Amino acid sequence: MTIDRQTLRWNGWGPVKQPNPLPADAPQWGWIEETLGMSRLPLTPAVPLPDIRLPHGRIAEATQEKLRAIVGDNQFRIDDYERAFHARGKSYHDLLYLRAGKLDMAPDAVIYPRGPEEVLAIVKLCAEEGIALIPYGGGSSVVGGVNAVSKTLGGAILTLDTTLMTRIIQIDKVSMTARIEAGIYGPALEEQLQAHGVTLGHYPQSFEYSTLGGWIAARGAGQQSNRYGKAEKWLVSAKLATPKGFWTTEATPASAAGPNLNQLVAGSEGTLGVICEATVKIHDLPERKDYRGYLFKNFAAGVEAARRINHAEIPVAMVRLSDAPETHFFQTFSSTGSGGLKARLQRAYLKMKGFDDAPCLMLVGHEGEKDTVIWAQEQTEGVCKRLGALALGTGPGKRWHHGRFNGPAIRDPMMDRGVGVDTLETSTRWSNIANLHEKVVAAISGAIDANMPEQNAHGIVMAHVSHSYPDGASLYFTFVFPRQLDREIVQWQAIKRAASDALLMNGGTISHHHGVGTDHVPWLAEEKGEIGMSLLKAAKREMDPKGVMNPGKLFA
Amino acid sequence: MTIDRQTLRWNGWGPVKQPNPLPADAPQWGWIEETLGMSRLPLTPAVPLPDIRLPHGRIAEATQEKLRAIVGDNQFRIDDYERAFHARGKSYHDLLYLRAGKLDMAPDAVIYPRGPEEVLAIVKLCAEEGIALIPYGGGSSVVGGVNAVSKTLGGAILTLDTTLMTRIIQIDKVSMTARIEAGIYGPALEEQLQAHGVTLGHYPQSFEYSTLGGWIAARGAGQQSNRYGKAEKWLVSAKLATPKGFWTTEATPASAAGPNLNQLVAGSEGTLGVICEATVKIHDLPERKDYRGYLFKNFAAGVEAARRINHAEIPVAMVRLSDAPETHFFQTFSSTGSGGLKARLQRAYLKMKGFDDAPCLMLVGHEGEKDTVIWAQEQTEGVCKRLGALALGTGPGKRWHHGRFNGPAIRDPMMDRGVGVDTLETSTRWSNIANLHEKVVAAISGAIDANMPEQNAHGIVMAHVSHSYPDGASLYFTFVFPRQLDREIVQWQAIKRAASDALLMNGGTISHHHGVGTDHVPWLAEEKGEIGMSLLKAAKREMDPKGVMNPGKLFA
Repeated sequence: MTIDRQTLRWNGWGPVKQPNPLPADAPQWGWIEETLGMSRLPLTPAVPLPDIRLPHGRIAEATQEKLRAIVGDNQFRIDDYERAFHARGKSYHDLLYLRAGKLDMAPDAVIYPRGPEEVLAIVKLCAEEGIALIPYGGGSSVVGGVNAVSKTLGGAILTLDTTLMTRIIQIDKVSMTARIEAGIYGPALEEQLQAHGVTLGHYPQSFEYSTLGGWIAARGAGQQSNRYGKAEKWLVSAKLATPKGFWTTEATPASAAGPNLNQLVAGSEGTLGVICEATVKIHDLPERKDYRGYLFKNFAAGVEAARRINHAEIPVAMVRLSDAPETHFFQTFSSTGSGGLKARLQRAYLKMKGFDDAPCLMLVGHEGEKDTVIWAQEQTEGVCKRLGALALGTGPGKRWHHGRFNGPAIRDPMMDRGVGVDTLETSTRWSNIANLHEKVVAAISGAIDANMPEQNAHGIVMAHVSHSYPDGASLYFTFVFPRQLDREIVQWQAIKRAASDALLMNGGTISHHHGVGTDHVPWLAEEKGEIGMSLLKAAKREMDPKGVMNPGKLFA
Repeated sequence: MTIDRQTLRWNGWGPVKQPNPLPADAPQWGWIEETLGMSRLPLTPAVPLPDIRLPHGRIAEATQEKLRAIVGDNQFRIDDYERAFHARGKSYHDLLYLRAGKLDMAPDAVIYPRGPEEVLAIVKLCAEEGIALIPYGGGSSVVGGVNAVSKTLGGAILTLDTTLMTRIIQIDKVSMTARIEAGIYGPALEEQLQAHGVTLGHYPQSFEYSTLGGWIAARGAGQQSNRYGKAEKWLVSAKLATPKGFWTTEATPASAAGPNLNQLVAGSEGTLGVICEATVKIHDLPERKDYRGYLFKNFAAGVEAARRINHAEIPVAMVRLSDAPETHFFQTFSSTGSGGLKARLQRAYLKMKGFDDAPCLMLVGHEGEKDTVIWAQEQTEGVCKRLGALALGTGPGKRWHHGRFNGPAIRDPMMDRGVGVDTLETSTRWSNIANLHEKVVAAISGAIDANMPEQNAHGIVMAHVSHSYPDGASLYFTFVFPRQLDREIVQWQAIKRAASDALLMNGGTISHHHGVGTDHVPWLAEEKGEIGMSLLKAAKREMDPKGVMNPGKLFA
């Protein structure tokens, strides 16, 4: 069920053998060069693994023997590929290090347990011997959540890869819950559930290369979270292997038996223990799906539509609103090279309809029983039209559906040409969306402008509302910029710091669904406050007094 | 804004001056006597306060001076009425003690702060001097949640009454949230919100005599929780006064910035600090409400309807399904003395329609925009009819609405006649509802039968599904029984133990919305497990190292 690590890129996204979405002769390159104001895009290939020297392993031979005794020789790996593959996650920042061949941060070994009992034995051994233990599912973290960090200087680091634990243990079609092992990848999970006519419905952009356990650990959100909920919402119960033993959380719906400890598991990011199994809420496969596009005259009108759709309790699966730069970017990116006549005609039509050059695209998805979808779609269209939107029909929905997991794969060829691509996301109350959007765009743009490799170079900053709630919504920012090749880490840090400070200063959270990892540690402390952090640390001390579980994540 | 304590019953429910719903000449008495198999119902009046001697206060004079300095003389009370009023909550078990004049458990003083700063000063003083501090809102706990317990033998106890803190601080009609002081009673809260066209929609049976802070502390549920959510769902952010200082939790929607600490506040039951303010989700006042009755041939068919309504995601406000004994009880109770002809005709009609003598009544409420309500009601009726239900129209909904807060007030006259009335509630997954219902009814009935004052006496045990979710539902049990006057505490303990053991042995939670308090402490430990409890205790130690905050609740 697992994906063979050798078939995946250790320093990029997805399979080694996949068509390059942006080959050297793609028509987009000229446009990117022009848009970024670069005289020419340099060639910046990644250093291949054979040219990289990894640090010596620090796990004592006797301990290695004990670990082999738990899982068998074949499931305990110390080869360079496994160590490099598990060194870091998939953030822009991680890729800078990996592509440069900087593998100082790499686990000393990787272990593949086949079930909770083996996980527990590994956790206990690491706690006894003071070895840092990094739980690793798909490894798709973009915040340093799986990075091989030890809190002890020169301490040994073991990465625990969960992807051999992939069983669906039980499906309860009366209660609509399923108990599933946490190392299962998205596609395998959905394939097996859908064979029973049910779905979890959790489709993050990382779906193909992320796992159930990771979704829970980081409080992830699928693209259809309006219908299926974020991880903390669909989580019914979890079983963790912790230094104190197995911890199984309560499974009764909406209990009042003290605080809900599932909510301490969601967002724990491996710092309390390894999530081995989870019981999750499932749904019947939707009888019908309906995804459509609406074009708004400006971002504010689209935000208002999203807000009204939520407050009217129309059962939507997804509401996704791009701001004007993002709408323009994707329109141009996909139409570049395909002839400009259609685009020119479209623009003329829009102008006639009172749209200026900065329209905003909203995609709304409905899923469920046929009658409900038909009814809900009519309600949604009514809200959008009353706010002056142009209904674009199902075409934009189909195009989005087709490419919805492709974002990260486009980053790799960009990075081969000196281009940086990063994203970050937040959420805030509805009354603060416009303000936060403006302030964060300004902060990112400002930091990009202040850190450019050439005088006329500049970046692109765009955003969309990706998830929405009764009290607010998330904002997802994407920024593309030419790298300062001699100081690319410093450049990234400057942008990240400016963006994160702007988030916290303007009522946003440091993350809506990526999590904290190592990268957001300073801002988490600011967001939760001293007392909040002291509570999290108290839980950590109680479960993991030696601090071996995923050190450096959540806490400084 | 607060309700004058002197106008309320210190040893019963509601105002001193309220019409007795069961006067001595009410036609129901004969029926109750007969139904309970009693030769006659004894007179068991409560001991009046002037006949009761309260224990000597244990707060040192110097400390009293410091407390008076914080709030002023008038807000610091040591008179018998205030101490008796705040001695316990409103459980059956509490009333047994209060009515018998057993006031060994009473706070030494009661303090009424007017805002968070005063609360913090009180909390800090209590932490310094080791005085047990009991947060008290409406005092409607039925699980010992506000009982004046000290963990130190002979330790001093101060009850902090929050009901002078009643301001609505801010209403954000764009984000649909309101920031409100926690001591506000239900009616005042709704009156003020509704003057702005909005509602929290939280209407527990205790609505008239419970407060915002209490709802959050105990993870309460309003009767329309399908639409408005339980407290932990509508809580956006809270401000607590703790021994470590003010603690304000994160307010961003669905953040992934570590575990959601609001979920540690919900269900904390005053053990971490005093909830001073909360930001909550609000809704526009529903344009339309539609409440209707459906009669099912048996409980299983009604449960299946409730399940399908949830899984089809029909937007309902309330689904409430009585089992056959409860349907029969309320039908008989309300029709007793009003002539039997109508009831006989109804029975004949039902028999003709294929209903036997054990039909089950379901009430379904829809609230929201007019079109949505019309559409949803049709969907609901379709589900019910496909399962063989008889649609009864809006009459049953109106009758329920009229008496929906009256339950606790009927208990007082029952207790004057040697009759015990108690309730308890749980939740479980859909696939376990039938089993849990059967096992808990059997456990309660068995314990009642084994503890009867007369040979032919017996009790009545009935239940309803009160709240429902995608993965399961709650069950609310009511039991009426003749008291063993010479051992009524022991009798109650036997019933409570049998019921609670049955809950935990059969996959139920110890509480769905009443909380843990003192009464459920042993079962909480069983439900959460050793590791779960150790995490809660770690948080407690961190926030309240001296253990002064509401001792004896949640933890042994």
